[in-house]
Amino acid sequence: MMQNSQQQAYDRGITIFSPDGRLYQVEYAREAVKRGTAAVGVRTPEGVVLAADGRLRSSLQVAESVEKIHKADEHLGIATAGHAADARQLVDLSRRRAQVERLRYGEAVDVETLTKAITDNIQEFTQTGGARPFGCALLIGGVDEDGSPRLFETDPSGTPYEWKAVAVGGNQREAQDELEANYPEVETVDDGLQLAFDALAATADGGLTPEGMSAATIPVETGSFETLERSEIADHLDENGLLDEE
Amino acid sequence: MMQNSQQQAYDRGITIFSPDGRLYQVEYAREAVKRGTAAVGVRTPEGVVLAADGRLRSSLQVAESVEKIHKADEHLGIATAGHAADARQLVDLSRRRAQVERLRYGEAVDVETLTKAITDNIQEFTQTGGARPFGCALLIGGVDEDGSPRLFETDPSGTPYEWKAVAVGGNQREAQDELEANYPEVETVDDGLQLAFDALAATADGGLTPEGMSAATIPVETGSFETLERSEIADHLDENGLLDEE
Amino acid sequence: MMQNSQQQAYDRGITIFSPDGRLYQVEYAREAVKRGTAAVGVRTPEGVVLAADGRLRSSLQVAESVEKIHKADEHLGIATAGHAADARQLVDLSRRRAQVERLRYGEAVDVETLTKAITDNIQEFTQTGGARPFGCALLIGGVDEDGSPRLFETDPSGTPYEWKAVAVGGNQREAQDELEANYPEVETVDDGLQLAFDALAATADGGLTPEGMSAATIPVETGSFETLERSEIADHLDENGLLDEE
Amino acid sequence: MMQNSQQQAYDRGITIFSPDGRLYQVEYAREAVKRGTAAVGVRTPEGVVLAADGRLRSSLQVAESVEKIHKADEHLGIATAGHAADARQLVDLSRRRAQVERLRYGEAVDVETLTKAITDNIQEFTQTGGARPFGCALLIGGVDEDGSPRLFETDPSGTPYEWKAVAVGGNQREAQDELEANYPEVETVDDGLQLAFDALAATADGGLTPEGMSAATIPVETGSFETLERSEIADHLDENGLLDEE
Amino acid sequence: MMQNSQQQAYDRGITIFSPDGRLYQVEYAREAVKRGTAAVGVRTPEGVVLAADGRLRSSLQVAESVEKIHKADEHLGIATAGHAADARQLVDLSRRRAQVERLRYGEAVDVETLTKAITDNIQEFTQTGGARPFGCALLIGGVDEDGSPRLFETDPSGTPYEWKAVAVGGNQREAQDELEANYPEVETVDDGLQLAFDALAATADGGLTPEGMSAATIPVETGSFETLERSEIADHLDENGLLDEE
Amino acid sequence: MMQNSQQQAYDRGITIFSPDGRLYQVEYAREAVKRGTAAVGVRTPEGVVLAADGRLRSSLQVAESVEKIHKADEHLGIATAGHAADARQLVDLSRRRAQVERLRYGEAVDVETLTKAITDNIQEFTQTGGARPFGCALLIGGVDEDGSPRLFETDPSGTPYEWKAVAVGGNQREAQDELEANYPEVETVDDGLQLAFDALAATADGGLTPEGMSAATIPVETGSFETLERSEIADHLDENGLLDEE
Amino acid sequence: MMQNSQQQAYDRGITIFSPDGRLYQVEYAREAVKRGTAAVGVRTPEGVVLAADGRLRSSLQVAESVEKIHKADEHLGIATAGHAADARQLVDLSRRRAQVERLRYGEAVDVETLTKAITDNIQEFTQTGGARPFGCALLIGGVDEDGSPRLFETDPSGTPYEWKAVAVGGNQREAQDELEANYPEVETVDDGLQLAFDALAATADGGLTPEGMSAATIPVETGSFETLERSEIADHLDENGLLDEE
Repeated sequence: MMQNSQQQAYDRGITIFSPDGRLYQVEYAREAVKRGTAAVGVRTPEGVVLAADGRLRSSLQVAESVEKIHKADEHLGIATAGHAADARQLVDLSRRRAQVERLRYGEAVDVETLTKAITDNIQEFTQTGGARPFGCALLIGGVDEDGSPRLFETDPSGTPYEWKAVAVGGNQREAQDELEANYPEVETVDDGLQLAFDALAATADGGLTPEGMSAATIPVETGSFETLERSEIADHLDENGLLDEE
Repeated sequence: MMQNSQQQAYDRGITIFSPDGRLYQVEYAREAVKRGTAAVGVRTPEGVVLAADGRLRSSLQVAESVEKIHKADEHLGIATAGHAADARQLVDLSRRRAQVERLRYGEAVDVETLTKAITDNIQEFTQTGGARPFGCALLIGGVDEDGSPRLFETDPSGTPYEWKAVAVGGNQREAQDELEANYPEVETVDDGLQLAFDALAATADGGLTPEGMSAATIPVETGSFETLERSEIADHLDENGLLDEE
Repeated sequence: MMQNSQQQAYDRGITIFSPDGRLYQVEYAREAVKRGTAAVGVRTPEGVVLAADGRLRSSLQVAESVEKIHKADEHLGIATAGHAADARQLVDLSRRRAQVERLRYGEAVDVETLTKAITDNIQEFTQTGGARPFGCALLIGGVDEDGSPRLFETDPSGTPYEWKAVAVGGNQREAQDELEANYPEVETVDDGLQLAFDALAATADGGLTPEGMSAATIPVETGSFETLERSEIADHLDENGLLDEE
Repeated sequence: MMQNSQQQAYDRGITIFSPDGRLYQVEYAREAVKRGTAAVGVRTPEGVVLAADGRLRSSLQVAESVEKIHKADEHLGIATAGHAADARQLVDLSRRRAQVERLRYGEAVDVETLTKAITDNIQEFTQTGGARPFGCALLIGGVDEDGSPRLFETDPSGTPYEWKAVAVGGNQREAQDELEANYPEVETVDDGLQLAFDALAATADGGLTPEGMSAATIPVETGSFETLERSEIADHLDENGLLDEE
Repeated sequence: MMQNSQQQAYDRGITIFSPDGRLYQVEYAREAVKRGTAAVGVRTPEGVVLAADGRLRSSLQVAESVEKIHKADEHLGIATAGHAADARQLVDLSRRRAQVERLRYGEAVDVETLTKAITDNIQEFTQTGGARPFGCALLIGGVDEDGSPRLFETDPSGTPYEWKAVAVGGNQREAQDELEANYPEVETVDDGLQLAFDALAATADGGLTPEGMSAATIPVETGSFETLERSEIADHLDENGLLDEE
Repeated sequence: MMQNSQQQAYDRGITIFSPDGRLYQVEYAREAVKRGTAAVGVRTPEGVVLAADGRLRSSLQVAESVEKIHKADEHLGIATAGHAADARQLVDLSRRRAQVERLRYGEAVDVETLTKAITDNIQEFTQTGGARPFGCALLIGGVDEDGSPRLFETDPSGTPYEWKAVAVGGNQREAQDELEANYPEVETVDDGLQLAFDALAATADGGLTPEGMSAATIPVETGSFETLERSEIADHLDENGLLDEE
Repeated sequence: MMQNSQQQAYDRGITIFSPDGRLYQVEYAREAVKRGTAAVGVRTPEGVVLAADGRLRSSLQVAESVEKIHKADEHLGIATAGHAADARQLVDLSRRRAQVERLRYGEAVDVETLTKAITDNIQEFTQTGGARPFGCALLIGGVDEDGSPRLFETDPSGTPYEWKAVAVGGNQREAQDELEANYPEVETVDDGLQLAFDALAATADGGLTPEGMSAATIPVETGSFETLERSEIADHLDENGLLDEE
C-alpha cells in the first residue's frame, strides 16, 4: 500500500478525521480484515449458511482452534474475518448479550438487535480516545422467533449491513462476484452451502482443503445452529471439484 | 483537497483553534458528511417530508440496511448523511431521549427540544479532548403537539438550524439550488415529496434507482411518521422521469 | 493572518504561554469571534438594547434559527457572536444559572453576578487541559432589581467587561467607532435601537437585510426582555436608510 | 523576545525543567504579568496603600470594569497585574478563603496566611500536569487583627514575598526605582498614596488618566478597606502634576 | 531487523493499525518471544508433555529460578517463552483463575476455559491505551475432568490456538519442523518426552545441557502435573545423544 | 550548559531513563537547586546549626520573606535551597507530618523518620507521570528525643543523606570545601555557627550582607529551634570579617 | 553509549517494544543499576551473606546514610544497587509486605514469596503507562522458617532470579567472575564474607575503604539478620589485603 506524508498526519494516536473527511484508523482496520482468510454468509428461504476458510500454521495445529465460525446462541451463528483476537472479543460479547436478553426478556434475541448492540460497541472504539478500532468483521446469521432468516455484517466502523449473501476477508471481491453471479439460483440450505463453498474457492488459489475450513447452518425449520462435520465439508468440496489437488 | 503545512498544525489530537479561528476537525467532519449520499427534508403546510439516497455495495445487499431514514418517535423522523456509524449513535440517542421525555412528562418531545438535546451532545465532542467530532448531519423532522410541522438540521459543530427545505450530504449545493428554485410552489405533502426527489436527482448523475432510496412523511393531519414503500418511491421516480435509465 | 514557526510552537494541545506571555489558543478563539457576524449592545438610561446580524445560508433557512439574541431570564437578554455552537452552550448555562438563583434565593440574578459565573466557566476552559477555549463572545444585558440597566461583555479569555455601548464579532472596529461617535446623544431606548442599527450597518457592505437580524430591549420601566418583530426591524432600517438596496 | 531552539524544547505541554534548571512556562507566565498595566503597593506605618493603572479599550467602557483593585475581606485588598481572567480566579479564591476562615475560626484571616493559601494554589498549577501556570501577580495588602499593616506579592511560581513597597506589571522596573528612591520619606497613608501615584506615573508615557485607574487604602486606624473615588484620584494626580496633558 | 520510516509511524504510543492493517506493537511483542529460549508441548493419547530450555546467566545461578515450566493447578502446567517478567504475570493470573474456578464451581477448570480467560486478558492490553502487549507466549497443557489431554498456545495478540504438538520461542521453526516430522509416531508420554527433547535440541547448537532445562508431564491416568527431576532429564538427553558434548 | 540532541530526547514529558541510565529531569531539578542561594547545616556535639543566604530583589523587600530557614516543629528546623515555591510545599508537608506524628503517637517525630517521609514524597514525583520533580533541596536538622543531634539532606531524586556538615545551593562546592577543611575543629554550637558563616562566605563574592541571611540553632540542651536575630547575624559576620565591604 | 535514531524511536513516553522485541526503558533502567556501586550476595550452607560498597560524596557524609544494606524483617536482608531513591521505595515495600504477612498469617514471609511480591510490583511499572521502571536491583537474602538459606535478585524487568552467589551494580562482571572462580570453596558464613569482599574488591580500583561499605549476615543457626560493625569490616579487609592503600 502506498503511503504519503499527508496520510501519516491523520492515522496516529486517536482516530481523527483527515481533511477529506476520512477516518484512517478505521480504514486500516478494514485492511486488517482483508489480511485474514475469507468468510461467507448466504441467506436462503430455508435458512442461513455460514462458511469460512482458516489458515493452519502447521499440520499439528488442531483444526478446530482456527475455525472461524462460532455459535452465539441456540439460533445464532457468527463467522469472523480479520484480527482473530479482536473477533473473539466480539463473539464473546455477542454470547453474553444473547444470554442477558434471554434472562431479562425470557426470549431469544433478534439477529438485528444483537447486531446493533455489537456495532454500537465497535463504533465507540472509533470515536473516543485511548483505544484502537476492532480489526475484524463479523457475519451474524440466525433465524428470528418469527422464522425469518437474517444475515448481517458488522464492519470496523461500527456500521451494520444486512445481506442476502456476503463475503468478508481476503479476496473478498472475488467471492462477492461469485455470490452475485449465482445467488439467484439458491433455494435450499444445500444450495446455500454449495454457493458458499464456491465463493470461498474463488478466494483460494488451487482449491480448498477441508482442514481449517468450517461451515454451519441455521435452518428455518429447526431454528438451531448446526455445524458441519469436517467429513461433510470434505464431501461437499469433493462433489463440487473444489478440493485442493495439491 | 489541498493541504498545506499550516493547516496540518491545527488538525491533530484534540479539536483546537487555528490562528484564523477555525476548528479544522469540525470542518473535516463536514467533509465526512459530503462523502456520503444526499438527504433532503421539505417542510410543507401539510407536513414534513424526508427523503434520502443510499449506496448499495452489491446487488445482494438488503436495501433496507442502507436506508438513511429512521423513525425516532411516533411523530418524529430523522434522515442522515455522512459517516453511517456515527449517525446511528445519534439516532439512537434521539430515540432514547424521546422515550425519556414521554416517560417523564407524559407527552411527545418537541422537534426543537429534541434537536437541541442532540446538538448539545455533538458540541461537547468538539470541545473536550479524548474524542473526535461526529462525522454526520441529521435532518430531524416532525409535527409538534400543536400541529406545527418543523424541520431541523444538526451539523458537526453542534449547531441546530431550522429550515423550510434543506439538503445535506454529497452534492448538497446542487440539491439546495433545486429546493430554492421550486420550494415556493410546494403546498401539499405530495408536492414536498416531488420536490425532494427532484433535489436528490440533482445530486445523482443519470437519474435515481429506487434501491437504497428511502422516503418518509409526517403529515400534520395524522402527526404520524410513515415510510414510503419502495414501489411507491419507484412510481414517484417514474412519474417524474427521474429513474436511472441505465 | 501571518503565521511563523515560533507561533506554531505555542498553539497546540493545551493552552500554554508563549515566550512573550501570550495564550495563543485564546487569541485564536478571539479570531473565531471575528469570523461571525456582529452583535451590538447599548445601555441607555431607559433600558438596554441588544441587536445582532445573522447570516442566512439559504433563502429557505428559517430566519429565527440563526438569530443571535436569546432571552436568558425575564430581565436578561444575551446577544452572541462567534462560534454558534459554543455560544449556545453558554446561553444554556446562563439560563440554568438564572433559574438556580431564582430557586435558591427567590429573586432574579444580578446581571453582573450572572456574567461572572459565565466568565468563571470560560476561564477554566483556558487553563486546564483536555479542552479548548470557547470561540464566542456574549453581550449580556439586563435590568437589575434596583432598576439599573447593565451591559456586560464576556470574551474568550474569561474576562468580564462592562460597557455603555459595545460591538463584538465581524468588523467590530467599524461598529465600535460608530458607537463612540454617537453614543453621547443616546437618551431613550429608541435612540439606543437606532444607534445599534447604525453600528451594525457600519459592519455590512451595502446596507442590512431584516432577515437574519434580531433585536431586543430590556426597558427599565418594565424590566422585561422584549424582542422586536422582524417587521419592526424592517421599519427601523427603512426609516434610517439602512436597508440593503440590492 | 529572542527564541532559540533549546528553549522550545522545554516550554511545551506540562511545566518541566530545562537543562539549566529553569521552568520556562513559569517564566513565560511572568511575561504575561509584564504585558499588563502596573499595580503598586505601599506599606506605611499608618496603613497599606494599593494603586493600579487600567487600560480602557474604548471611551464607552465602564471604567470600574477594568479596575485592578478588589476588596477581598473587610481588612484586605488585592491589586492585580497580568492576565485578567486568571487574576479574577485568584481574587475569588481569596474571598472564599477569607470567608471560610471567618466561619471556621470566627476571626479575620491574617494577610500572610491568606497569601500563602493563594501561593500554594499557584504552585500546584506549576508542578502537576494538565494545566498551565497562572499568568498574573497579586499584591495583597491588609491590616492584621493586631494592627500590623502587611503587604505581600504572589508571583506566577507560587512564591510569596513581603514588601514595604512594590510594583508589578508593565514597566515594573521604572516604578520600583521610584519606590526605592522615595519610600524612606513615607510616613502617612497620604504619603503612600502620593508615592504610589508617582510610581505608576513612572510606568506611563506622558502622565496618567484617572479613567481606568483605581486606588484603595487600608488604614491601621480603621482596619477597613476603602476605595478612592475617581474624583479623589483625579485630584491627587492633578495636585502632583501627574495628569496626562494630552 | 530492517526498519523503515513507514514502520516507525505505527509503533509508538498506543497500539494502532498500520496502513496495511498490521499491529506493529503486537508483532514486536512476538519478536520478544523469539528472543527467549524455546518451549515445546506435545499432546499424546496418554497425556501432555511440556519441556523448555532455559538460559543460565552464570554457573552460580540456581537452575530452578530460570525454569520455564510452572504448575498452574493440580491438572494444569504452563511452559513459557519470551519476556520472563510478563510470563510470570500470566502464570500467576492462571493460578488465581484456576483457584477461583475451584472455589466457585467446586471443580477443576477446563484447559480451554482457562486459556481463553488468559487470552482475553492479553487481547485487552493490545487494544486499550496506556499499556503495551505482553511479550511472551504460553503453552498451557492439562487433562480435563473427562480425561481429555489438551494443549493450547497463547500468543501476544491474545489468540488461543490448540495443538497436537507445538514449539514457541527462539528457533521455533526448527523445533516445529522436528515435531511435524516425528509426531505421527508418538503414542506414549515417554514418546512425547523424547520428541520434545529432540525438538528442543533442534533449537540449540551443539546439544543441550540439563541445567536450566525443565520438563513436566500430565498423564491422563493420574491427571496430575509431575515435573521431571534434573537427573531424569539428563538421562533422557544422554540416552538420545542430545547432551552438549562441550 | 551544553545541550546536545541526544539529551533532548530524554528530558521531555514524564521522567524517563536515558540510554546511559540517567534521569535528566532529576538532574535538571538539581540544576534548579544550584540556581538558588546556598544553605549550610552543621552538626555539632552540642546541637545542630542551620544557616542560609537569601537574595533580596529590592531594598524594599522585607528580608524575612526571603529567609530560607523554617521551623518545622519544636525540635526541628529546615533550611532550603532552589526553587522557592517547591521548597515551601515540602516545608509545609514537613510541618503537617510532624503534627500528625504528635497527634498520633504523642511524641516528637524523629529527624530521620521525618526526612524519609519527605523523600518518599519527592521520589514519587520522579517516577509517576503527570508531574515534574521538586526543584529544591532541604537540610533538615533537629534533636531527637534521646538527645541526638541529626542533620539530613533531601535531594531532588528523593534520596535522604545524613551529614556532619553539608552545603547545598549555589556554589555548593566552595562551601563544602570550607566545611571539610574546618569541621574537625567544631565542638560547640558557636563553632558551628562560625563554620556555617565561613562556608556561606565562600559562596559569595566580596563578603556577606546580613539582609536576606538567616540562621538558626537547635541546641541539644534545650532541644528547641531558635532563630538568630538579624543583629546577631551581623555581629557574627562582623567579628569574622565576613561583611560585604561594598 | 552509542545511540542511533532507531533506538530513539522506542525509548520515549511509555515502555513499548522495539521492532526486535526489546524494551529499551527496561534496558536503560539496567544501565542505571550499573551506574551505582556494586552489591554482592553469597549463599552458604550456614547462612546468607550480603555486602555492598557505597560512595561517599564528602568526608563529612555520615557513612550509614549511604549504606546499601537494609534489614527487611528479622530473618531478611536486602542489598541494593542503582538509583538509590527507587531502591528505598522497594525496601520499604518489602518491609511493609513482611509485616503484613506476619500479621495475617502469624509467621515470617518466605524469601521467595517476598521476592515475587516485589518483582510483581516492578513488572507493573514496565507495562502500564504513566510511569517509568525502577532503576535498581535488589539482592534479597534470608533464612526461611525451615532453615533454608535463600538468595534472590530482582532486576528492573521484574524477573526474580535465585542465586548461590551474585553481584549487581557497577563492574558487575568482574565481581561475578570472582564469585564463580571461588564459590566452590565456600562452606561457612565467614568464607562467604571473605568471598563477598573479594568480589567487591574486584569492582574497585586500588582496594576498598571501609567507609561507605556495609555487610550483613543471616546465619542459619540464628535465622537473624546481623550487620557487621565498620571495624569488623575494616579488619576483614585488612586481613585480606583489600584495603585501599591510598
